[in-house]
Amino acid sequence: MLQSKLFTKTVKELPKDEISFNAQTLIRAGFIDKVTAGVYTFLPLGLKVHNKICDIIREEMNAIGGQEILMPALTPKNVWQTTDRWDSFDALFKLAGVDKKEYALGATHEEIITPLVKKYIFSYKELPVYIYQIQTKFRNELRAKAGLIRGREFSMKDLYSFHKDEEDLDKYYEIAKKAYFKIYDRCGLSDKTYLTFATGGAFSKYSHEFQTLTSAGEDTIYICDDCKIAINEEIIKEQETCPKCGGKKFRKEKAVEVGNIFKLGARFSKPFGLQFINEGGKKQDVIMGCYGMGPSRVMATIVEVHHDGRGIIWPEEIAPFVASLLKIKNQKSPAARRAAGQAKIKNIDEISNKIYTDLQAHGVEVLYDDRENISAGEKFADADLIGCPYRIVVSEKTLAKDSVEVKRRDSEKCEFVKLKEIINYF
Amino acid sequence: MLQSKLFTKTVKELPKDEISFNAQTLIRAGFIDKVTAGVYTFLPLGLKVHNKICDIIREEMNAIGGQEILMPALTPKNVWQTTDRWDSFDALFKLAGVDKKEYALGATHEEIITPLVKKYIFSYKELPVYIYQIQTKFRNELRAKAGLIRGREFSMKDLYSFHKDEEDLDKYYEIAKKAYFKIYDRCGLSDKTYLTFATGGAFSKYSHEFQTLTSAGEDTIYICDDCKIAINEEIIKEQETCPKCGGKKFRKEKAVEVGNIFKLGARFSKPFGLQFINEGGKKQDVIMGCYGMGPSRVMATIVEVHHDGRGIIWPEEIAPFVASLLKIKNQKSPAARRAAGQAKIKNIDEISNKIYTDLQAHGVEVLYDDRENISAGEKFADADLIGCPYRIVVSEKTLAKDSVEVKRRDSEKCEFVKLKEIINYF
Repeated sequence: MLQSKLFTKTVKELPKDEISFNAQTLIRAGFIDKVTAGVYTFLPLGLKVHNKICDIIREEMNAIGGQEILMPALTPKNVWQTTDRWDSFDALFKLAGVDKKEYALGATHEEIITPLVKKYIFSYKELPVYIYQIQTKFRNELRAKAGLIRGREFSMKDLYSFHKDEEDLDKYYEIAKKAYFKIYDRCGLSDKTYLTFATGGAFSKYSHEFQTLTSAGEDTIYICDDCKIAINEEIIKEQETCPKCGGKKFRKEKAVEVGNIFKLGARFSKPFGLQFINEGGKKQDVIMGCYGMGPSRVMATIVEVHHDGRGIIWPEEIAPFVASLLKIKNQKSPAARRAAGQAKIKNIDEISNKIYTDLQAHGVEVLYDDRENISAGEKFADADLIGCPYRIVVSEKTLAKDSVEVKRRDSEKCEFVKLKEIINYF
Repeated sequence: MLQSKLFTKTVKELPKDEISFNAQTLIRAGFIDKVTAGVYTFLPLGLKVHNKICDIIREEMNAIGGQEILMPALTPKNVWQTTDRWDSFDALFKLAGVDKKEYALGATHEEIITPLVKKYIFSYKELPVYIYQIQTKFRNELRAKAGLIRGREFSMKDLYSFHKDEEDLDKYYEIAKKAYFKIYDRCGLSDKTYLTFATGGAFSKYSHEFQTLTSAGEDTIYICDDCKIAINEEIIKEQETCPKCGGKKFRKEKAVEVGNIFKLGARFSKPFGLQFINEGGKKQDVIMGCYGMGPSRVMATIVEVHHDGRGIIWPEEIAPFVASLLKIKNQKSPAARRAAGQAKIKNIDEISNKIYTDLQAHGVEVLYDDRENISAGEKFADADLIGCPYRIVVSEKTLAKDSVEVKRRDSEKCEFVKLKEIINYF
């Protein structure tokens, strides 16, 4: 993409009314815009990152048999009454239509998917089945100060699994755990992400959260470094030992919950009457699991974890572009430029344009800073703030060596790469 | 995809409480599920079609310079007050948060995009700019009976253009018109879709709708067959002659509005103070255009236009799969099957599986009806109802000719294609 055409621009000033680092930085770099507290617009760069995270999640959900659907945000009151959650569910946005019909804005979708599956599943032969969506969710939060980490409107992947018995659920639950860590790995979060034991509800002793260490975290977890698992603060009083090794040595850390998985049992199949005929010809409740992960929250967490004083450092697979290509003309001496003749300047333009076209043709996504009348310093600062994994500089200095200068965003080392070697380099 | 794994199934009965043909058929074929009036879930097949329509729209919007963003559904009251539309906008869903803050669910996004662009555009040098999103929209409709044609929750592509003057807007407006017809062409609707003159509002004499002829249409249009344009019923009294040729001969038809484009002028830039510095150094209002198209409504319209008594006939580019592959075993005589030995049966399985794998490997999307214990008749009926452009049958009869039988969904003609020719055929 040509940066001269990108309608957003980076801003130097910290945004007012925004105290979270992820939102401050994503706003300054032109990834998101704040509409009102907890509600954001995804700008071109931000939408690209968000979509890449969604695509990774989609691939890993498909790999474990997930079938993608899209449920609505408007959900009718009666289904919430069926499960007794209309009044009790935390932070449900409610509204009424002109026909006085009441709705909740979907904050979770057990109430929609359970009656849906009831229409199609009748026999043990049709189980298990795994269904997910990536959808916009809404939560009527009193305070929304953590940027994309806790919004009033945010994206959520929710997978629901349907089984004939607990044993089958248990097996799939472990498969889902592994898929979650694959996703965090591809998003650059696995080093800092811990499987965390949390309250389980009526059906099982624990649920599990995936907690990523960062000072921006709203949660406190207790890590057992021997087992590389953690316990959430809410259960540390009842669960004083590591559920894996029985040890009592914990490291206390702040963390963000980037995913959570639950065994639901028959909590939802029962009120909706979701049953199946078992091998013996008898009716039985379907056993369910649910598996949540918020792409927008994952995006915010990546920013909290991967940055330095100059800006974001995107992991390669989710970066908006693989490389920032900077065309640097010597702005400081127009007289010298004229003396040297226009030929050289034209050369920089031509070579930069060709590198851009060639890289794009080879499937390397490039943000090409082709802007005129912008100083080299500003271009370098913008590239660092936006945080693509590679920076490629084309200038008189690099062309004198028949090269471009390449620098990784996460390293201070620059190297010269010959013009004819660039395509192979990437 | 293996049809045995698809959790949805076709249903024979017409759904209760659903009078529109598109919803009845899409529900019966397992593309959508009705959650409540005007609110639907997109099931795996339906989501695939919807995503393909969105991808076509995206490609054509990008081709005319559109930059994609994603604005929120929760929009704060104050921006609607700025434009005096909080009370006057038709069918706005309103709700309040726990902090008593009021919101409207986005039914259109001029109120969000105008202040957004104000943060980034200051000079004539930065204009024009074209920004779009594909997003879920909400309308507080009193009645919602037309299936996906008029929902309470539905998908919408909205493009907004920002210009330094009307001349520049006029130019882009014509470019957008052409892009719209490209989209309808790729979706199989262009033959029946007419550029239709409608009320223009304060800024220009007309706005334009794109109306597709179908008896399911809620609109009435008057077509000038000489010019292949139409006039909407709401202005036919003021506009008694064709705006193009001046003729008075019209054909009256029912139609669905599958798109609409408006010249907004300074209607929104004025209240938000969206101005730019012109070439002469003076401040001037930005001139805007807006361009709407609903992917879910386009999907419904395609179903209304492309079907026969047996089901849907999807145009190739948006079909959930290019082909239905039917493995047909002779179910009627298990004794004969045993007499013939299992070898032949195995052969059908093996060859069908191989065709499926080979086609997928060559990028041909296939819905493989690998289900056992389903009659040939049911498989044929399902394939017709679901409506993929091609049907491929593998049976003892076809294998006797070393072939499969191929039939286009939109033709009654069957042909035998040799096994080794299948890949080349597609």
